[in-house]
Amino acid sequence: MIVVMEPGATEAQIEQVIARLHAFGFDVHRSSGVNQTVLGAIGVQPDFDVRQIKVLDGVAEVYRVTTPYKFVSRAWRREKSVFEVAGVRIGGPEVVVIAGPCSVESEEQIFRTAAFVAEQGATFLRGGAFKPRTSPYAFQGLGEAGLRLMRQACDAYGLGMITEVLDVSQVELVGRYTDIFQVGARNMQNFPLLRELGRTEKPVFLKRGLAATIEEWLMAAEYIMASGNPRIILCERGIRTFETATRNTLDLSAIPTVQKLSHLPVFADPSHGTGLRDRVIPMARAAVAAGADGLIIEVHPNPEEARSDGPQSLYFEQFAELMHQVRLIAQAIGRTVAERSPSSVRM
Amino acid sequence: MIVVMEPGATEAQIEQVIARLHAFGFDVHRSSGVNQTVLGAIGVQPDFDVRQIKVLDGVAEVYRVTTPYKFVSRAWRREKSVFEVAGVRIGGPEVVVIAGPCSVESEEQIFRTAAFVAEQGATFLRGGAFKPRTSPYAFQGLGEAGLRLMRQACDAYGLGMITEVLDVSQVELVGRYTDIFQVGARNMQNFPLLRELGRTEKPVFLKRGLAATIEEWLMAAEYIMASGNPRIILCERGIRTFETATRNTLDLSAIPTVQKLSHLPVFADPSHGTGLRDRVIPMARAAVAAGADGLIIEVHPNPEEARSDGPQSLYFEQFAELMHQVRLIAQAIGRTVAERSPSSVRM
Amino acid sequence: MIVVMEPGATEAQIEQVIARLHAFGFDVHRSSGVNQTVLGAIGVQPDFDVRQIKVLDGVAEVYRVTTPYKFVSRAWRREKSVFEVAGVRIGGPEVVVIAGPCSVESEEQIFRTAAFVAEQGATFLRGGAFKPRTSPYAFQGLGEAGLRLMRQACDAYGLGMITEVLDVSQVELVGRYTDIFQVGARNMQNFPLLRELGRTEKPVFLKRGLAATIEEWLMAAEYIMASGNPRIILCERGIRTFETATRNTLDLSAIPTVQKLSHLPVFADPSHGTGLRDRVIPMARAAVAAGADGLIIEVHPNPEEARSDGPQSLYFEQFAELMHQVRLIAQAIGRTVAERSPSSVRM
Amino acid sequence: MIVVMEPGATEAQIEQVIARLHAFGFDVHRSSGVNQTVLGAIGVQPDFDVRQIKVLDGVAEVYRVTTPYKFVSRAWRREKSVFEVAGVRIGGPEVVVIAGPCSVESEEQIFRTAAFVAEQGATFLRGGAFKPRTSPYAFQGLGEAGLRLMRQACDAYGLGMITEVLDVSQVELVGRYTDIFQVGARNMQNFPLLRELGRTEKPVFLKRGLAATIEEWLMAAEYIMASGNPRIILCERGIRTFETATRNTLDLSAIPTVQKLSHLPVFADPSHGTGLRDRVIPMARAAVAAGADGLIIEVHPNPEEARSDGPQSLYFEQFAELMHQVRLIAQAIGRTVAERSPSSVRM
Repeated sequence: MIVVMEPGATEAQIEQVIARLHAFGFDVHRSSGVNQTVLGAIGVQPDFDVRQIKVLDGVAEVYRVTTPYKFVSRAWRREKSVFEVAGVRIGGPEVVVIAGPCSVESEEQIFRTAAFVAEQGATFLRGGAFKPRTSPYAFQGLGEAGLRLMRQACDAYGLGMITEVLDVSQVELVGRYTDIFQVGARNMQNFPLLRELGRTEKPVFLKRGLAATIEEWLMAAEYIMASGNPRIILCERGIRTFETATRNTLDLSAIPTVQKLSHLPVFADPSHGTGLRDRVIPMARAAVAAGADGLIIEVHPNPEEARSDGPQSLYFEQFAELMHQVRLIAQAIGRTVAERSPSSVRM
Repeated sequence: MIVVMEPGATEAQIEQVIARLHAFGFDVHRSSGVNQTVLGAIGVQPDFDVRQIKVLDGVAEVYRVTTPYKFVSRAWRREKSVFEVAGVRIGGPEVVVIAGPCSVESEEQIFRTAAFVAEQGATFLRGGAFKPRTSPYAFQGLGEAGLRLMRQACDAYGLGMITEVLDVSQVELVGRYTDIFQVGARNMQNFPLLRELGRTEKPVFLKRGLAATIEEWLMAAEYIMASGNPRIILCERGIRTFETATRNTLDLSAIPTVQKLSHLPVFADPSHGTGLRDRVIPMARAAVAAGADGLIIEVHPNPEEARSDGPQSLYFEQFAELMHQVRLIAQAIGRTVAERSPSSVRM
Repeated sequence: MIVVMEPGATEAQIEQVIARLHAFGFDVHRSSGVNQTVLGAIGVQPDFDVRQIKVLDGVAEVYRVTTPYKFVSRAWRREKSVFEVAGVRIGGPEVVVIAGPCSVESEEQIFRTAAFVAEQGATFLRGGAFKPRTSPYAFQGLGEAGLRLMRQACDAYGLGMITEVLDVSQVELVGRYTDIFQVGARNMQNFPLLRELGRTEKPVFLKRGLAATIEEWLMAAEYIMASGNPRIILCERGIRTFETATRNTLDLSAIPTVQKLSHLPVFADPSHGTGLRDRVIPMARAAVAAGADGLIIEVHPNPEEARSDGPQSLYFEQFAELMHQVRLIAQAIGRTVAERSPSSVRM
Repeated sequence: MIVVMEPGATEAQIEQVIARLHAFGFDVHRSSGVNQTVLGAIGVQPDFDVRQIKVLDGVAEVYRVTTPYKFVSRAWRREKSVFEVAGVRIGGPEVVVIAGPCSVESEEQIFRTAAFVAEQGATFLRGGAFKPRTSPYAFQGLGEAGLRLMRQACDAYGLGMITEVLDVSQVELVGRYTDIFQVGARNMQNFPLLRELGRTEKPVFLKRGLAATIEEWLMAAEYIMASGNPRIILCERGIRTFETATRNTLDLSAIPTVQKLSHLPVFADPSHGTGLRDRVIPMARAAVAAGADGLIIEVHPNPEEARSDGPQSLYFEQFAELMHQVRLIAQAIGRTVAERSPSSVRM
C-alpha cells in the first residue's frame, strides 16, 4: 500500500500515520521529497480497507498495490484454466456454445429445443427451472419438474446441462440434476450462495452483476475458489448504463480484460446483453471475435409463446445461421467450435 | 399498452399485431392517422413483457401505460403508510433516526454505542451480525452472538433493533431478535428472501440496489407486500455512477420521486451513500431537507478500530453534532425528530 | 403523442388536458377504458417538449410516438447512404480503415506513418492538428503547420485525410486541407459547430459523446443534415460507465442499433474506446464482426515518444497484424476491406 | 508518481522502467520488498500521461500522486475564493440566489420575472439569449435582442445578469451585456471557449458536464484560471446515470467534495438537475442544506407558455415559497440569503 501525504502535511501527522500503519501490522518505508512525503506500507492483508488510512489527517491519497483477489489471478496461475465437463473441454482453444430456452416450459418444448441445438452443434443445454423475475406476478418456473425434464432432454441428445440456482436451499436439489450451476447476475454477490457452491464438486457459471466492476466480479469468483471449487466460468451479460436502446450494454472489452487479469474462462451472453433478438447474432459474432471462450444463447421453438424472454430468444433458423457465422468467425481467429467427445456421450 | 406502428406498416402487419394482442387477451382500440396507426390494448396483466409485441414486424414502439406494481403504489393507497415499531411511529411527520456501528464487534462496543445514540435521540440501533463482504477474507460478523448482544443493548437503552438478514435460511433466527429486518442493497432482488420476509410479521427495511431503477426497487417492495407484509421502509443508499470521488452517488431526488409514486416511507443512508465520514453530515442534512422520513447512520465509539466501514463511521461527537443539525433542518421544514413513546420503553 | 391519464383523473382534468393539446395545435383522439383514459394527440412537431403535458394535473405518463429526428432516419431513407470521398466508397459493403497518429508531431512522423498504413491497406490518414486536451498544460497540437504536413503526406501516399475541427472559427482553415471533418466526442453537441459544418461541402465524421444516448447522437447528425450536408459518418468511441478497467466502455451494440434506426454509415474507434493498446486488436475484430462500416485506429511509429495517447497507439507490426485479422473477419461475414480506386490516387 | 511492478517482474524490466522514467525527466526512488518492487518518480509534470509507463513490460499499476490541477486547488489557496459581482458577494457565508426564465422570450416576460424575483430576494437574473437545443427544430433564442432586454430588466430592478455563451465568436457580444458568463454543461470541455473566457475580466459560471468527473470539472476551471481569470463559480446540475425517473441525477455530494478539493464557490441547479417542477423545491432545500454557496432556479410568469423548459420552471408563487424555505434552511446551518448592497444598485 502506498500512502501519499498532502503537500503541507506536518511531521506530527506523518508520524501518526506511520504509527497507525505499524499498529495494523505493516512495515513502513518513508520517502520524503521536496514537496511531499510518500510512505510505502509492506505486508498488507488482501482485505485491508484503505479508507482506514485515507481518513487520517494529512493524508492525500492511498493506493492498494496488490489485487484484492488471489486464487483467481494470473499471478497465482499463469496458464489458462482448462477443464472438462460432460465431455466438453472448457477454457481451451474451442469456443463452447450453450443454447436453450429461458425457462423450461414443457416436455415437448425442451426436447424439441435440445434436439435442434444438439444437431446444430451446441454442446450444453440451458433452461431455467427456478426463475428470478422482477415481477412477483410473472411465471416463476416449473421447479423440480423442470429440472427433471431438462436432465432427460440432455441425456437423450448428448448435451451437458446448465441451470440457475437462486438460493442456498436449492443447491442440493439442483445439484442432483445439473452439470453446471449457473449464478445469475442478481446473485453475483449473494455470498452465502457463493460459499455453498464453493463446497460442491460441480463447475459454477458466474454471471457478472449489472453494476459489478470487473474487480468485484473476480472477488465473487474468489469466494467460490477460496471455498474449494476451482472450476468457474465467468460470463459477461451486459452492464447497466444510461443507454436504453438496448436492455443492457454488453461490455465486450471485459473479455480481453478478464483474460489478462485471470486464468478463468470467460463467456458472453448476447441474449441478455442486448434483450432484442435482432442484436443477438451481430453481438454473438463480436463476442467470439473479441476472444470469448464460449457463448450462451436463448433459443425457443416458438418465441412468441415463450413464458419469459421470448423477445430475445432466437428462432430455430436464426440459431442455425448463428452457428454458421460463429464457426466462420472462430476460424478467422484460429479457433473452432467445441464438439462433445464421442466417448462421453451417454445414450 | 399502446402500440405504435411504423409509418410504413402494411395493413397485413397491423392485422397480425391485432391478432397477437387478442391472443394475449387484450381488447384492442385502433386509431389510424394520416401517417401512422396507433393501437390501444386494454386489459394488460401487470407482468406482461411488452417486448412480446415490440419484436413483431411493423411495430415501431410499445408503451406500457400502467405501472407494473400495484400494492405499493399511490394509486392503491392515497395516504402515506404510517405504522409503529418498537414504540416509534414511522412514516409520520417525525424524522426517525437509526444509528449504530456497521458490525457488532463486542459487548462493550455495542453497549457504549447504544447508550450514546439513545441519549442523543436516536430511536433505533443498527448493527450487523451477518455481514455481506466483497472479500471472502474480510470479517463476516459475529453471527447469533452478535444478535444477542444487540438485543440486550436495545433493551437496556430503550431502542428498537434493526439488523440485516442475508439469506432465507437466516430469517427465523434473525426474527427471534430483531424488530426490523434489513435487506441490503446486494439482496434487493433476492426474490426467495423477499418472499420469505413477506410471510413474516415484522417490518422490512429495503435498501435500493446499486443499479436498481426506482421502478425495480418498488417492484422488490411489491414482492414483499404481495406475500402479505405491508410494513416496508424503503432506503436510498446511493447508486453506482461513473463518479468515483464518493463511494456511490446518493440519489436524493429519489426521495421526492418515491413519495410521489408510493405510499411507503423512505429513508436515506448517507454513510453508505458517500463512504466518507466528512460527507455524512452535509448529506444527512440534505436528505432531511429533501423530505426523507428517516436516516440510518453509522456511528462507532472508535472508528479507527472498527472491523468494517470505520472510514464512514462517525465519532460520537460528530453524531451529537449531526443530531443537533438534523433537528434544526427538520424544524425548518415543519417536522421534528421522532422520540420513543415512553410507554413502550422496556426497561 | 400518447397521453395516459391517472386512474383517478377527473373529467375536469381530462378536459383541461384536451384543451391544452388543442392550444398546442394537436388533434385529439380520446379512448376511455374502465379504469383509465388515454388520449392520442396527432400532429406533433418534432421538437415538442412532452413535459409540457406531463406536468398537468391528472396526467400519469406521456409518450412521444415519433422519432425527434427526420432526415437521418430509415423512415426518411430506406436504403443505406453510400458516398465516395477521396476515391473511397463509404457505407457500402467494404469495411473502410482509417489509421494514423493521435497528433501530427513532425514531418518524419506523419510521413512514416502514412507510408506504412497505406502499404497495409488503410485508405484514410487520421491525425490531429488542433487537440482538445483535458489539461491546459498538455500539448495542444501543431495548428496549421500540422494540417499542411498531413495534406502532403496524404497526397504522397494516396490517402484521404481526416482531422478534427474544434470550433466554428477553424472550419474555413481546416476545410482548406482535409477531406473529412472530424467532430470529437466533447463537441457532439456543439450546435454552432454542427450547423456550420452542415453548410460545408465536405463529409463530417461525428463521434458519439461520452454520455450521449443513441437518440441524442442521431439528433446531432440531424443538425448537420438539416443544415444541408447529407454526408455524415457516425463513429462509436465508447461511453462513460462505472467500469474503470478500460478508459471507456465501447458500446458495440450501438452499431446494429444505429443501422436499424438510420441510413448513415457507422464506424468504431477501438483506440479511444478502450484506451489500452492490447485491447485494440480484439475490439477492432469485434467491431467488424458486429457489422461496423469502418474503423479508425491510432498508430504511431514510436508510441513511447508520442506526445498524446501513446499508450493506446499501435506499433507498426501490431497494425499489420490488425489489418490481417480484420480482413479475415470481414471475409467471414461476406465483406472486404475497402481499397482506394486507382483512378483517384493523386500522385 | 508511483510505479508498482508486477510480482514476477525481472530485473531487466525494472531497469527499463527506471530508464524510461529518467528519460521523461523524473528522479527515481526504488524500494524492493520480498515480493514486489515499487518505484517512486519525483518531479512529474501535471499533464504527464501515466499510461506511458503503464504499458511497459512488467508494470502492474501506476498512480499519479499529485492532482492534475493546480490553481483551482485548496493546496494553492487555502481560504475560500470570495469576490463581488454586481454588488453581491459570492463565496462568502451568504447563499446567493439566481433566478429567471430558461429563455428570454419578450420584454413583458423578462421584466415581469425580474420584478418578481428581485422582490422575493434573488440578486441575479438568469435567461438565455442563445440556446443550445438538442433539436435543430427547437427555439434557439432571441440573440442580441434578448441580451438587450435582459440588461434593461436587470438595470431596472437592481439585479446582476448571467447568461450563456455558446461559442468563442459570441464572447465579445455577450460580454457587452452580461455580468457573468455562463458555460453550459455541453460546453464544459469546449477548450477554445474556456481559454477565451480566461482572457476576459468577467466571472465565469461553469456548469458540470453530464458525464464529467469532479476532477475533469476542476480541470476545465483550471483552463480558465490558467488563462488569467480567477473568478469562477462552479455549478452542479445533475449527471447522467441509468435512472430515468428524473432528467438527470443531481449529485449533491459533489458540493462538499468540491469544497474540500477547491477554493472556488459551488452552486446547484435543481431545475436542470431534476427536470420536473415538483422536485425543484425539495432539491433546492437539500442543496442549501448540503452547503451550496448559491442556487440557480428557473422561474417563468407562465410556465405553460414557455418556449423552452417550461415543465421545470417554477410558478411565481412556488418561487416565493422556495425563497421562504431556503431562508429557513440557510438559517438552520448558520447562513443567510445574500442581498444586494444598496450602494451598488444602479437605477
